[in-house]
Formats: sequence, structure tokens, C-alpha cells
Amino acid sequence: MRRKARQASKAENRPRFWGRHAVAAALDNEERQIHRIWVTREAAAHYDIPKEIPVTFADVADLGRLVPKDAPHQGIVAEVERLDDILLADLLDQAEDGKPLLVLDQVTDPHNVGAILRSAAAFGALGIVTQDRHAPPESGALAKAASGALETMPWVRVVNLARALDDMAAAGFWRIGLTGEANQSLAEALGPARVALVLGAEGEGMRQNTEAHCDALARLPISGIESLNVSNAAAVALYAASVARS
Amino acid sequence: MRRKARQASKAENRPRFWGRHAVAAALDNEERQIHRIWVTREAAAHYDIPKEIPVTFADVADLGRLVPKDAPHQGIVAEVERLDDILLADLLDQAEDGKPLLVLDQVTDPHNVGAILRSAAAFGALGIVTQDRHAPPESGALAKAASGALETMPWVRVVNLARALDDMAAAGFWRIGLTGEANQSLAEALGPARVALVLGAEGEGMRQNTEAHCDALARLPISGIESLNVSNAAAVALYAASVARS
Repeated sequence: MRRKARQASKAENRPRFWGRHAVAAALDNEERQIHRIWVTREAAAHYDIPKEIPVTFADVADLGRLVPKDAPHQGIVAEVERLDDILLADLLDQAEDGKPLLVLDQVTDPHNVGAILRSAAAFGALGIVTQDRHAPPESGALAKAASGALETMPWVRVVNLARALDDMAAAGFWRIGLTGEANQSLAEALGPARVALVLGAEGEGMRQNTEAHCDALARLPISGIESLNVSNAAAVALYAASVARS
Repeated sequence: MRRKARQASKAENRPRFWGRHAVAAALDNEERQIHRIWVTREAAAHYDIPKEIPVTFADVADLGRLVPKDAPHQGIVAEVERLDDILLADLLDQAEDGKPLLVLDQVTDPHNVGAILRSAAAFGALGIVTQDRHAPPESGALAKAASGALETMPWVRVVNLARALDDMAAAGFWRIGLTGEANQSLAEALGPARVALVLGAEGEGMRQNTEAHCDALARLPISGIESLNVSNAAAVALYAASVARS
């Protein structure tokens, strides 16, 4: 897929990824530029690090100072460039029946977005779409939660989510917004069609204008006074979509 | 339910809960002893704090020093006593068709256990069961992720998980272990019977002896090279069980 080239970042603005899966997947991703790596001698044996990436051998305590307190770095830290942007049109060109899209409205917690990327990869989603101003940037915590899926799952950031939802409809996607106030269950709303699953932030839910751009609203079969963590709701929605098409 | 009384803790060992939902639910729980509360004057208006709990008014920065760095305390922190233990036999006495049990083998991350309690509450589970030595204690991070469910969802800690699984079988539970290596899907393995859903730690999976104490093994319909975060896998399993009985 084409990516909009991004201006080279200053070193101090570059994210640092840590943890085995996150860094190994970054090394495997041809589109990911890695500026440098810090690694313990023991952990280094597990990676095939290209010669052109500067490597600094460090001990566990040194690595601990490169990442947030108590971050489980597992012996390796990489300073990386953020990926270039993907265009929604390019993602929609690759739409296939049976590959759901996930749309996140104002989900800002990096752990949640990371876990959602991981679930999206596990359930074979087409990609995830977020709104630029209301989504977290690539970061170490997000990459760790994604467990490698940040490198493989297409993630489109759009300026205007309502317009993006229009584009999805034009590409044949049935847009289902998840909300506790819907009358029908997700299982009832799902069909064999291409589906875009739209989730809002915890507590707030989808914005009204996002909801207005959905073809159907559906709820998960949970107790009315309870709610799910948004990454758990996304996993359940992806599972339900996968069952509906099988 | 009966609880085994616990020795009173020393102040420095008591967990601190923070965040609106976690503290409000603790205040609502008759079985939760709260030793003291720190709160901003602004946040205090939202809580009905019994007179016998000592309250200290504090500013946001003071509260920040009482909790881990960057913890979203939302203006309130409570020092609490851990809940007394629940006996498995008492939980099994309350078994009802349609209320699944969740069994966690070596899931140690407090955010995951908290999110699982929240999902268990949302999907109306009977309770969760963990092994004492391989589960996190009650903590602020766990209570925050549980979003109140730590106070309402029965959580049994057992010494011997294999024996607990025997007791569940005796109580009429069909024990389904989730593993990527199973031949049948979770939807196929589920039936109208009472079900105990058994999940292992990420990466490691269930221990062999835990697996040996399951009646059936089942997999989620995900790509073989991928995996789910354990709290997401638990949410999917609870959803699938809820669909299977409806």
C-alpha cells in the first residue's frame, strides 16, 4: 500500500519500542525504519539485526532507564521512525468479503488501541480506522500491547471520520455502530455483507455524528448497568463477525 | 457468601484504590472495609462517604503522590482492606444454568485480571477462580481495570487448581479449556450445560495438569500465528457462552 511520506522526525520525538514481539515485528517490517537498538548481550542472540542499524549493548538496568518505569522491555529497546500514513482509499481497494473494518471514535488509550490492533490481526480484519486528532500516536506502550500487530495490521488515520464512514459505505461496507442503547443484538445486525464495526470511547460512546453515519446500531448481550473495556468489546465484535460469516 | 476472615493488615500493606468507579463501588460494598479516603473538594461532592471513614481533602498533585505515576485517580484515593476469601464450595452452591465460571491458570497481570472481572460482571458469570500462588493480589491497578466489578464479582482463590476443577465437575460443570491446539471451535464445544471456561497465561497457555482436568479443549477462530490478549480471549469466551445458551 502507498504511504504518505512523513517528515523525518527529530531523535527526541521518536518512539521507543520494547519487548520481544514488538521489536521482532518491527525488524521484520520493511516499511519500519529503525534508528538504533539497545539490547542485552543475552537477548541479542534472539534477533537478526541488520548491520546498518547501530546496536548498543546494555545491561537490564540501563534498558530500564530508556523506557517508562516498570515497562517489561525483555532485554531490547528500539528507537524507531513512525510509519508513514496509509490512505483510506488504498485500504478500501483491498476490501474482501469476510474481512471486517474496525472504526474507533475517540479511543485514546494506547493500551486499548494496541490490544485492538492485536485482536484485529488475530481475527483477520482488513484494518482499523481512527480520527487523527482523537487517537494515540505510535508509542512503546501501544506497540507492546499490539504484540507485533502494529507492523502488520493496516491502521488508517483520517481527518474527518464522518467522511471516512461515507467512503466505507460507497465501498460496500455495512456500518454497524455498537451502543448499549440499540434495540437489536450484534448477532442480529450482522450478515454476510462486508461490515465496518464502529466503537466509541468508554463512557462517552460514539459521538452523535458518528452514530448518524452508521447503517445500523447494535448492542452486545451484556447487563444494562455494566460495560466492557473497549478492547474487549472490539474482540467480541470481531469474533461475532467471524462467526456470522462462517 | 461466607468469607474466611483475614488477619487485619498493616497500613503499609493495604492497597489503595483510585478512580471514580473503583472507589464508588468499594463504598457501595458492605463487605469492603475502607480505612481512609483522600479526595479533592470538587470530587467529594460526587460521593456519599460514611461519617466513620476518615477523609482528608487534598489537591490533585497530592493525590498523584499517593498512587503510581500517571495513575488516573480522578480526584479520589481510598486505602482499603482486602476482601476476605470466598470458599469455592459456597460459590458452587450458587451455580445456576447459564452462569459460566471462569478459571484462570497463571494469569498474573493485574490489568488483565481486572478487565476479566469487568467482563465477567457484564456477561453475568457466576465468578472467577484463580490459584493463590499464581494470581495478582487486589491492587489499585486491578480495581481500576475492573471498574467496580472487583466488589461485585465473586473471586475465589484456591490452593490447588486441579482439585478445584474436580469440584467443579462434581457440581455439574463442563470444563472447556481454551487452547490454540484444539481441534474443535469454542462454538462447537459449547452446549446448554453449565460451563467452566479455563484460560491459561499468554504465551505459556494452560499448564498440562490443568488441561488434563478439562472435559474438552476448544480454540477461538483466529489465525494460527496470532494470539489474543488473555482478557480479550476471556471476553470472547464469555460472549460465545452467552450466545450458546440463548
